[in-house]
Amino acid sequence: MLKRFIIGIDLGGTNLKVALLDLHFKIKDKRILDTKSCGTKELLISCLINATNKIIQDNRLAKVNILGLGIGLPGPIDIKRGLVHFFPNIRGWQEVNLKGILRKRLGLPIFLDNDANLMCLAEHRLGAAKGFKNVVCLTLGTGVGGGIIIEDKLYRGLSFAAGEIGHIPINEKGPRCNCRGQACLEAYIGNARIIEKAQKLFRRKIALKQLSVLAKKGNQKAIALWSSVAEHLGIALAGVVNFLNPDCIVIGGGISGAGRVLLDKVRKVISERAMIVQARHAKIFKARLGNDAGLIGAAILVKEGLR
Amino acid sequence: MLKRFIIGIDLGGTNLKVALLDLHFKIKDKRILDTKSCGTKELLISCLINATNKIIQDNRLAKVNILGLGIGLPGPIDIKRGLVHFFPNIRGWQEVNLKGILRKRLGLPIFLDNDANLMCLAEHRLGAAKGFKNVVCLTLGTGVGGGIIIEDKLYRGLSFAAGEIGHIPINEKGPRCNCRGQACLEAYIGNARIIEKAQKLFRRKIALKQLSVLAKKGNQKAIALWSSVAEHLGIALAGVVNFLNPDCIVIGGGISGAGRVLLDKVRKVISERAMIVQARHAKIFKARLGNDAGLIGAAILVKEGLR
Repeated sequence: MLKRFIIGIDLGGTNLKVALLDLHFKIKDKRILDTKSCGTKELLISCLINATNKIIQDNRLAKVNILGLGIGLPGPIDIKRGLVHFFPNIRGWQEVNLKGILRKRLGLPIFLDNDANLMCLAEHRLGAAKGFKNVVCLTLGTGVGGGIIIEDKLYRGLSFAAGEIGHIPINEKGPRCNCRGQACLEAYIGNARIIEKAQKLFRRKIALKQLSVLAKKGNQKAIALWSSVAEHLGIALAGVVNFLNPDCIVIGGGISGAGRVLLDKVRKVISERAMIVQARHAKIFKARLGNDAGLIGAAILVKEGLR
Repeated sequence: MLKRFIIGIDLGGTNLKVALLDLHFKIKDKRILDTKSCGTKELLISCLINATNKIIQDNRLAKVNILGLGIGLPGPIDIKRGLVHFFPNIRGWQEVNLKGILRKRLGLPIFLDNDANLMCLAEHRLGAAKGFKNVVCLTLGTGVGGGIIIEDKLYRGLSFAAGEIGHIPINEKGPRCNCRGQACLEAYIGNARIIEKAQKLFRRKIALKQLSVLAKKGNQKAIALWSSVAEHLGIALAGVVNFLNPDCIVIGGGISGAGRVLLDKVRKVISERAMIVQARHAKIFKARLGNDAGLIGAAILVKEGLR
């Protein structure tokens, strides 16, 4: 019998990940490229195509072995038309029919979605939110992205842009946000903001990972910093809990590595500030699938899309 | 052929409305009682039962003509078990199995829901949001309630408590809210807050309706007051637009009577502060069904529930 696989791609502002997955979403092979070294739009598209062809060949497979290609993208997508509206952190992409281009040049079924949606899909099907019906997932990174599962289905909204938790304002006035808004959650807890604050506090450059290690070791400054991050996050999530009354919230991405110092405080803020009925049952989990969530979600998108 | 009708009840902290509706949701008869004059829990339940029996008899009908009774309630409900958790503005209700009591004493199929959900259902099926798929409705009154329609269905959340737009925090620090939270939207634009602000501004007692009339006549103080209400509301809704990417938002309840001075400013704030993709398509409508939305929604709940 013909062996069948799925290609998953996770395109980020920094890394371009390409993986070969089996139909149980196990990663059989994975490559990580540098997004910027690929170059501009046309070259980046060629990069996607070459990397796909190469991972197929290197595994001694042919197109006939590949069910399809799923790709997570760092920006708003029209998934119906397969259109990239733009990428906030990669220049030169404006209304690009990426699905059409890839289908033509690869001859495979192509499925596109926003990267945070795919992380959410993966965590719901196979990760921390498995078995829960109404779920909100967040990724904490350069940006603060998110996805929503309603009645076990990815909820995308009218323009496929739902889930932007990072752009819920937590104050009426406050720092400008990259999205053009003001006082959005991301403007307080995006990676760059945390690093800025840490630099002021420690009077030297300090990486996020180190900040997590310090907090775990009991460093009071680091704990206070994570505590203030958790406060901002908890307030935004109290609003989400009141408004959406989800079964659980899954928190992933780099800064979720701070672990309990972050999550316990987030839980505390929600339990203090959200409404009693909603707060009583809303579970707050750390994401389980780590950095591979996007690749796994891309493969799930293909398999479920072809059903 | 047997003529069939539905009883709709809308229980509020001030008024108890009881209506007889036909199967096209036309109100054939309506009575308005004073909730407080009914008295405590047991007496209020008797009031509901007597008013139901009376409207049936007065219309020369019998129980056999009634498909069922739908009732909108001003607080969190477990609609599966038919349980009222509590009412923020009516004392003495704690985990009351209202559905069981009414079914036993009336011998009719009983359907319960939160009043804001029923307003939302009515506006979606027959009002301003007809034809839209993903909808958020708000009622602006003593409290700021809301409901969510996802893919044409009322979305209730894990504990049937979704839609609490009034309890999205719009600032990290701010006035205490009745819900025990802090700086919730309701703590800025609940009726009582607006009246307080108006009193300070005009140095006399002034009713909401009058405030709307003054604004329409061009009174600058009144316009400024509505503008600040719209600012608070618009900021909360910018978050909702970014997070849920709805097709449209319907605004009803007393203060929506301020009309364009309120709605135009809300639209402006959303278009300035929400993300481009989501803001581009989100329509902001005034509710169309007015004070009867709750009764109509209650009847829709019965008809759709019995399908």
